[in-house]
Amino acid sequence: MNAMDGDGMDRDVVVVGAGFAGLRCASRLREAGLRVAVLEARERIGGRTRSETLGRMTVDVGGQWIGRGHERLLALAEAAGATLRPQHVEGAKLLQLSTDAPGRVRRYRGLIPRVSPLALVELELAIRKLNRLAGEIDPAAPWAARHAAEWDAKTVASWAQRRLRSRGAREVFDIALRAVMTAEPGALSFLQLLFYCASNDGFEALTGTTDGAQAWVVEGGMPTLAQWLARDLGDALQLDCPLQSLEQDADGVRLHTPQGCWRARRAVLTLPLPLLAGLDCRPALPARRQRLAAASPMGSVIKAVVAYPDAFWRKQGLSGEALSHRLPFNTVFDASWPEAEGGALVGFIDGAPALEQADRSPEERRQAVLESLIEYFGPQAGEPSGYIEHNWVTDPWARGCYTVAMPPGVLSGLGAELRQPAGAVHFAGTETARRWTGYIEGALESGERAADEVLVALQDAAAA
Amino acid sequence: MNAMDGDGMDRDVVVVGAGFAGLRCASRLREAGLRVAVLEARERIGGRTRSETLGRMTVDVGGQWIGRGHERLLALAEAAGATLRPQHVEGAKLLQLSTDAPGRVRRYRGLIPRVSPLALVELELAIRKLNRLAGEIDPAAPWAARHAAEWDAKTVASWAQRRLRSRGAREVFDIALRAVMTAEPGALSFLQLLFYCASNDGFEALTGTTDGAQAWVVEGGMPTLAQWLARDLGDALQLDCPLQSLEQDADGVRLHTPQGCWRARRAVLTLPLPLLAGLDCRPALPARRQRLAAASPMGSVIKAVVAYPDAFWRKQGLSGEALSHRLPFNTVFDASWPEAEGGALVGFIDGAPALEQADRSPEERRQAVLESLIEYFGPQAGEPSGYIEHNWVTDPWARGCYTVAMPPGVLSGLGAELRQPAGAVHFAGTETARRWTGYIEGALESGERAADEVLVALQDAAAA
Repeated sequence: MNAMDGDGMDRDVVVVGAGFAGLRCASRLREAGLRVAVLEARERIGGRTRSETLGRMTVDVGGQWIGRGHERLLALAEAAGATLRPQHVEGAKLLQLSTDAPGRVRRYRGLIPRVSPLALVELELAIRKLNRLAGEIDPAAPWAARHAAEWDAKTVASWAQRRLRSRGAREVFDIALRAVMTAEPGALSFLQLLFYCASNDGFEALTGTTDGAQAWVVEGGMPTLAQWLARDLGDALQLDCPLQSLEQDADGVRLHTPQGCWRARRAVLTLPLPLLAGLDCRPALPARRQRLAAASPMGSVIKAVVAYPDAFWRKQGLSGEALSHRLPFNTVFDASWPEAEGGALVGFIDGAPALEQADRSPEERRQAVLESLIEYFGPQAGEPSGYIEHNWVTDPWARGCYTVAMPPGVLSGLGAELRQPAGAVHFAGTETARRWTGYIEGALESGERAADEVLVALQDAAAA
Repeated sequence: MNAMDGDGMDRDVVVVGAGFAGLRCASRLREAGLRVAVLEARERIGGRTRSETLGRMTVDVGGQWIGRGHERLLALAEAAGATLRPQHVEGAKLLQLSTDAPGRVRRYRGLIPRVSPLALVELELAIRKLNRLAGEIDPAAPWAARHAAEWDAKTVASWAQRRLRSRGAREVFDIALRAVMTAEPGALSFLQLLFYCASNDGFEALTGTTDGAQAWVVEGGMPTLAQWLARDLGDALQLDCPLQSLEQDADGVRLHTPQGCWRARRAVLTLPLPLLAGLDCRPALPARRQRLAAASPMGSVIKAVVAYPDAFWRKQGLSGEALSHRLPFNTVFDASWPEAEGGALVGFIDGAPALEQADRSPEERRQAVLESLIEYFGPQAGEPSGYIEHNWVTDPWARGCYTVAMPPGVLSGLGAELRQPAGAVHFAGTETARRWTGYIEGALESGERAADEVLVALQDAAAA
């Protein structure tokens, strides 16, 4: 397609965003015989997944894991002929609380660290309660739950404060929450957390590795699966093509970009909510959807991968998994693969520390990451053979990661707008997923759902 | 100034926004001898104030009242030779709770409705507590209060739920909160409410009329004072001139608009936070400021004025003031002036009902407003001689009113960014005010503060 060729830019459907949601949506629409264009603002596909070369390894600096139950993503990996590796978990995990003396790191095994007997009991009861309440939520309509308004009127911190009286339990919970939601407990709606649990098989699955959301990684990096999804798009895919404004009338949709104007009968937008908030639409999007977008910041995370000559922590009986309430690099996993190439640790600056680190120089962040790793794993961690990071907080086309971090008062009142089409404009993206929201699997689910919406709408129009 | 004349567009300072903050900032900078341009996106000045003609009356459909202690605004009114009228308050007020039978309206006098003896005691204690906690806050730095993180981790609803056990007390509090903050208690940070009280002389003053924030109105409408502030701007004022992008480097700031590019040594942005969130800045604004903007929706309000042949409610011993927990037109005052022209009621659809009504047609909203007024004031209210409204929810240059409605986790963590300049870019607007935030008085204070910042910065540059 020549973008400047007026007639060539007429399509049945234009999909905005070439992440997993947009690519899956486009492939399904093309399977149905429709003429589709995919417009992507970045110079690459993959959205919030991204891989980089680090020494002789290809590492994920964006969405990385396939979780238990992520059936669409597993099928995609199989179809693409990808090799999957189970997340390395053998060995002890590390934990550091804010009250721990500098240099003190606790070793533990299993899902819940044994901070103290009281803390363990409190945490087990709290997680059980969380899952029980999540069980009252239909992930297709969390706003319709009987207690939705009540749960959405409090923060996760307000809930945890009453459930977790011991400081150790509270800190372990906060660490886990920050790792899962990339948000602070005091800023997040309790309903949003329950919805996340309901959509993702419960709190343990969210925090778990081989039995949960961090089960497998993809050889060559997660974006290889995006490339496979996009393999037949050819010039239906337009990179470096940010949507500047969108007009719709009875004839359909016009999408204006620096590369020209596309016309379509239907459009599917997969943008994160903060980008939707700034989008120039004529007519304007409905007031409630605009407010949903304006009130829905993303979570905060900076991801880094650090390479070493070998996986030295394994020799110390450590799995590479580490969590901290005090260090900025607060969530770490082993990422050594292939092992012949040496060792690697992958980790995250999650939540408020990510906002603090976001404007520092990459060198300063590297220093902060290495200092964290030295506290966890000892002086050897200070001598890496390579370092790479991606700052998702300042990424202009993500505005944060992994997903939306809704504050109180948004999901109950405005959540029903998430998937509500606005005229001929449909919405996809992992934030709009019913099942597996926040994950790549949710992005795929949302893309399929949006494609089906469009197919029904165009059939209805043809029948009319 | 000819906007297309390249050299003519060089200024010492460009102020973006011709509301009270921008106009006051510009006048102070011009008094200091600087060359200033004011760029305004709308076709009019006045920002979130706006007046319209209704019959032979000029009525405010935006910011309307001067409050006790609003010294800058009172001085401005005096300098402009404006006539002020005390808000009409004689007579009984009306109140309707959600449990009241249709048609039942309670009459009361004084600040707190006597819903029940228990409710009265609870409300008095709660307001006393609120003001005591607000007393611990320095309005110049609410994020620095000793308990800021704790207060910012809960919603106003979480606080009220434990303080106000009787349903009547809780509903009266919710009504007042909705009227003052145009937000729902379940979506608003408790720290934000305390800051608002600290900045505005306490909760009673915020809800009060002649002794509080709704003391006087301006003959001919509040925008006459904006016009007086702008009287000497001449072609330094550019209307219909939305800021599209902003670049800065060592030479200063370039502001791109559909009417051309302005260059300045300094810029002052008075935009509401949701508009800042969508602004294309190079380099990007700091990550924490971007997140502040993305996480700070505005309150929700639609304002309407209804004219009648006479102020018939006064003959029934009513003041015209009415509040409801059930009707969409949930806050009403008398607006009859001059009285020879007949009667008028001014009121608001505040909070969640405003989002629900925002996409309906003006006719549907008019119907909802009249039905509310009939419930309050009887069948005569159904026969108006005129009706006018302004939908601030969908106003593209306001994105809501009166001011920002911060959810939990924003003010404590990111509030310090509100007034923090980003290079040569300074920030004003009532959201950035220390004293009288949310009011026109706060806009004036913020404009003066931003002007002083710019003057110091330019003096420092000259001395260097």
